[in-house]
Amino acid sequence: MVGIIMGSISDRKVMQEAAEALNELGVAFEMEIVSAHRTPERMLDYAKTARSRGLKVIIAGAGGAAHLPGMVASLTTLPVIGVPILSSNSIDGWDSVLSILQMPGGVPVATVALNGAKNAGILAAQIVGTSDQAVARRLDEYKQELQDKVADMNKALKTNT
Amino acid sequence: MVGIIMGSISDRKVMQEAAEALNELGVAFEMEIVSAHRTPERMLDYAKTARSRGLKVIIAGAGGAAHLPGMVASLTTLPVIGVPILSSNSIDGWDSVLSILQMPGGVPVATVALNGAKNAGILAAQIVGTSDQAVARRLDEYKQELQDKVADMNKALKTNT
Amino acid sequence: MVGIIMGSISDRKVMQEAAEALNELGVAFEMEIVSAHRTPERMLDYAKTARSRGLKVIIAGAGGAAHLPGMVASLTTLPVIGVPILSSNSIDGWDSVLSILQMPGGVPVATVALNGAKNAGILAAQIVGTSDQAVARRLDEYKQELQDKVADMNKALKTNT
Amino acid sequence: MVGIIMGSISDRKVMQEAAEALNELGVAFEMEIVSAHRTPERMLDYAKTARSRGLKVIIAGAGGAAHLPGMVASLTTLPVIGVPILSSNSIDGWDSVLSILQMPGGVPVATVALNGAKNAGILAAQIVGTSDQAVARRLDEYKQELQDKVADMNKALKTNT
Amino acid sequence: MVGIIMGSISDRKVMQEAAEALNELGVAFEMEIVSAHRTPERMLDYAKTARSRGLKVIIAGAGGAAHLPGMVASLTTLPVIGVPILSSNSIDGWDSVLSILQMPGGVPVATVALNGAKNAGILAAQIVGTSDQAVARRLDEYKQELQDKVADMNKALKTNT
Amino acid sequence: MVGIIMGSISDRKVMQEAAEALNELGVAFEMEIVSAHRTPERMLDYAKTARSRGLKVIIAGAGGAAHLPGMVASLTTLPVIGVPILSSNSIDGWDSVLSILQMPGGVPVATVALNGAKNAGILAAQIVGTSDQAVARRLDEYKQELQDKVADMNKALKTNT
Amino acid sequence: MVGIIMGSISDRKVMQEAAEALNELGVAFEMEIVSAHRTPERMLDYAKTARSRGLKVIIAGAGGAAHLPGMVASLTTLPVIGVPILSSNSIDGWDSVLSILQMPGGVPVATVALNGAKNAGILAAQIVGTSDQAVARRLDEYKQELQDKVADMNKALKTNT
Amino acid sequence: MVGIIMGSISDRKVMQEAAEALNELGVAFEMEIVSAHRTPERMLDYAKTARSRGLKVIIAGAGGAAHLPGMVASLTTLPVIGVPILSSNSIDGWDSVLSILQMPGGVPVATVALNGAKNAGILAAQIVGTSDQAVARRLDEYKQELQDKVADMNKALKTNT
Repeated sequence: MVGIIMGSISDRKVMQEAAEALNELGVAFEMEIVSAHRTPERMLDYAKTARSRGLKVIIAGAGGAAHLPGMVASLTTLPVIGVPILSSNSIDGWDSVLSILQMPGGVPVATVALNGAKNAGILAAQIVGTSDQAVARRLDEYKQELQDKVADMNKALKTNT
Repeated sequence: MVGIIMGSISDRKVMQEAAEALNELGVAFEMEIVSAHRTPERMLDYAKTARSRGLKVIIAGAGGAAHLPGMVASLTTLPVIGVPILSSNSIDGWDSVLSILQMPGGVPVATVALNGAKNAGILAAQIVGTSDQAVARRLDEYKQELQDKVADMNKALKTNT
Repeated sequence: MVGIIMGSISDRKVMQEAAEALNELGVAFEMEIVSAHRTPERMLDYAKTARSRGLKVIIAGAGGAAHLPGMVASLTTLPVIGVPILSSNSIDGWDSVLSILQMPGGVPVATVALNGAKNAGILAAQIVGTSDQAVARRLDEYKQELQDKVADMNKALKTNT
Repeated sequence: MVGIIMGSISDRKVMQEAAEALNELGVAFEMEIVSAHRTPERMLDYAKTARSRGLKVIIAGAGGAAHLPGMVASLTTLPVIGVPILSSNSIDGWDSVLSILQMPGGVPVATVALNGAKNAGILAAQIVGTSDQAVARRLDEYKQELQDKVADMNKALKTNT
Repeated sequence: MVGIIMGSISDRKVMQEAAEALNELGVAFEMEIVSAHRTPERMLDYAKTARSRGLKVIIAGAGGAAHLPGMVASLTTLPVIGVPILSSNSIDGWDSVLSILQMPGGVPVATVALNGAKNAGILAAQIVGTSDQAVARRLDEYKQELQDKVADMNKALKTNT
Repeated sequence: MVGIIMGSISDRKVMQEAAEALNELGVAFEMEIVSAHRTPERMLDYAKTARSRGLKVIIAGAGGAAHLPGMVASLTTLPVIGVPILSSNSIDGWDSVLSILQMPGGVPVATVALNGAKNAGILAAQIVGTSDQAVARRLDEYKQELQDKVADMNKALKTNT
Repeated sequence: MVGIIMGSISDRKVMQEAAEALNELGVAFEMEIVSAHRTPERMLDYAKTARSRGLKVIIAGAGGAAHLPGMVASLTTLPVIGVPILSSNSIDGWDSVLSILQMPGGVPVATVALNGAKNAGILAAQIVGTSDQAVARRLDEYKQELQDKVADMNKALKTNT
Repeated sequence: MVGIIMGSISDRKVMQEAAEALNELGVAFEMEIVSAHRTPERMLDYAKTARSRGLKVIIAGAGGAAHLPGMVASLTTLPVIGVPILSSNSIDGWDSVLSILQMPGGVPVATVALNGAKNAGILAAQIVGTSDQAVARRLDEYKQELQDKVADMNKALKTNT
């Protein structure tokens, strides 16, 4: 089970892609709004009980001074994946990226690209796949599909030129 | 009473300047290490009891993915002053600045310049000075001293040229 | 009483949010256009008489080479909150942010996020609230509302998925 | 088993910290130099056989136009952790960070902070810990130690002031 | 013969300008989609056989963590021209530029401006023109045309003012 | 007569180069410390009386949130040359550059390179030289000397290789 | 007489504001397209004959790798004002700004804000005004108008609130 | 024959690496100081006669507002390789990189990494190698050596651990 959390409903459009990737790769997940700055105590509960509730990975998305992924990581020993979101109050995304990526020694956050929720979903599946053969197989199929799409693109390229 | 907190003992060299400014301006303070990432629950206690313990302002310094000022601000309604620190794991200070400054609507942090702990101390005194005439007077004297120093510099300039 | 000033009528759209926050938190304010570059002497008068006119905090918004907050801070010992504005002549907001934030030792400006006028209003109320119990209580209520909104968002999230 | 790779012997000083973290957390690892740009075919072999050789996670460090983590991720479905290194030919680390972090959809790299090899080791252990109780327990102990160090720092702070 | 490759069909709009420049300068070319991250082995084949298939120069366009130009350069001794593309997942183009430009010693990529595919085409022709007099002559004519266009612009300027 | 001002005695090392350039080009100057943030009223006097005191150009150097050049420009119609200084509290000089360069429409500052006080001196002489033939001639000689130095460098290059 | 030049007809929309400012301030000017990269020899002629043709100041606008202002400055001892233009091939304007501003010692360019052609016009008038009383008087009037506009804005602010 | 030029003797330390690479790869070269800003007419001569003097490629290094590579490219149809140099007056190298890389359509510069003169030499050899079999063979050997060095590094890694 993967937990997907985000700081605001406005982050859903981006974070939805993590859910879709997990769906496609056959990994169960739950999705919730947990705000570091508006519900800090709710966040503390969420993170501290995550492992015992059966979560294996947490995906946390946030923008601007994005503290959610790092704070969750400070409260659990599960792997936490951070998704920097280009929110409306962000300076070109740099704040989102740096406040998630630059964690101090001892408390890692696995950071993906700006708005990279899809990759967060795949990365969560890869982590699950280290001990779940079925997921690992689906990841292999997914990799093959990526390759096939390039072949399709080449056909389109030849046709349209 | 002003509370000065920082994420690590390595931040003391910078944060000491806040203490010195408060000393000079006659404002009492306490100083402590409270880490958002290593002692999140201690941080929660600190922030939630701050007002009842008699604090009027909190100065929080942190570097890299600097979450301490913003997280404390999420847990109290006291004014929180954030000092971005150019720590060894920082990318030229940009991470420290942006992860303190770019707080979402609803949870302000009064951010000062990179390594600007001295100004954090003065700002805290200015806040105290909004309701404490003695501190306000000391701030006036301090402003006069700043001016006098420029006169001294001009003498030095004329002499050394 | 809080003074809200801005360099140009074009900044009103952003600065209005400071006024709304103060309204919501029950703090009186006045609003005026004072330009550092076009009315420098008017700015000097405004800042030097601010405390005697009964102001407790000044919120100053400006964009580009944003000198208004820092110059006002050089002329008063009241706390000055600076709002960097993403004006049309700004380079992604970096100029606005840096020319407000990076004040030299001795003259602090309490800087908030780019276009963060709402937080400037809340911060001003927090400063007033250090000596005004009624405002402090409204800030507590406001914090509770932030939390409640997240609960509402979670309902929306469950429904729309 | 965790595989640690890096593009050059000059990266060893940084990457050594990943090895030390894994040692401390009781996770086996191997360490090797695999260069994306100088030994691309060796890299292909390494990545394609990684899972069958028993690796569960790959940690890849590189600087400048840092292609090693992303290219390895394109060749395996194991989780790949990327460590941006501030090498001598880097522009303040921005090139290292962006060329590891900003992977396209489909091929994630779990990026840690600039020179954050220690966190890469901990993150790898967290991933292993999702299916290995002994490692999960050691991670809990490690988290406790982080907390204890802050208590020690506070003692030092009180003493030295 | 010049080989033009790109990571995705979405890069065609930009890369088309390289093809047009080569057409205008009378240099033959082929165009194909080769993705470093989705078809790494196809990329290896493409690059290793490039010289024997008669290519003289390779133009490679990519965006975000743009590894295609550098990886192709690691697999051939032909000159490789890299075109950083401002793709949708890019942070203002900085990732594209830096992950192509900042190659380590030993493996150069001739980088052109962001979205500068037209210049990539001209540069490829200049390289071909070092040993092909006909192409060199067309480049001279092209330079003259650039000059003539400025004369036309001046006429337009005088007219419209 | 050219007026050279700077915010602090610590800027003298850089600003001295403006004085040297003016000396070399035979243009009279005066040098003084005038701080926008510590002596705002002294700055107002300086700028408002500059033309009547016989100044033709003002060179103003400042670092960090560098308001001196822009504020002086708001108070006089003389040309003001701004020198961004890489002071100790600066973020790689970006704050100094942007807070001088990005002036709003109506109030220009002629900005030179970071620490470019030498060029500020030459530019001031060029301005004086628009109406002073002797200075214009010295500028021609100076240009010739620049050229001669390259010839000398080429001799050194041939010798030392 | 002021010379306004720009690298391309597409820069006219921005550069027109320099012409308008000069018109308003009563300073004669000529406007022309001179491209550093497409008409380098025409540029050389333009710059070398500028003073003898009676020009007192040159305003040069360019975007991207903007070489026109600096190259013109290398060929004349007249003051050269550089206008960085946010052209379509620019990375957020940083290339335009830096390639105009960061001139080496010996060859100054008076740089104004990104797209700041209006200020370039005013600055040129200020330079002319150092030896032309009529222009100096118009600049004083213009400064007064700037001030008056703020008064008007304040009326609008009071009305619309 | 390859022409290596640089703007100042202070660039020699970096540019020497281009010479060494060409030496190692058996490509003849000449080296000279040609300054865009101090000897613009000498630069014009150099560039316009380059092809007729037998040059096949020009390598131009410069720092700060680095105009040399682009201006030479505007004056010849030979391929021009630009080396951005981190000179003392540079802002972290960004000015050098952007003013070389971001050339407008029509006038390409083949840009290499900051201080990447070694790669400039190799790229020049690759261009020569498109029509010179002996050089192409040496490039193959060089690529093999790069690979061998990694094998050596791995031995060192095993030994020292």
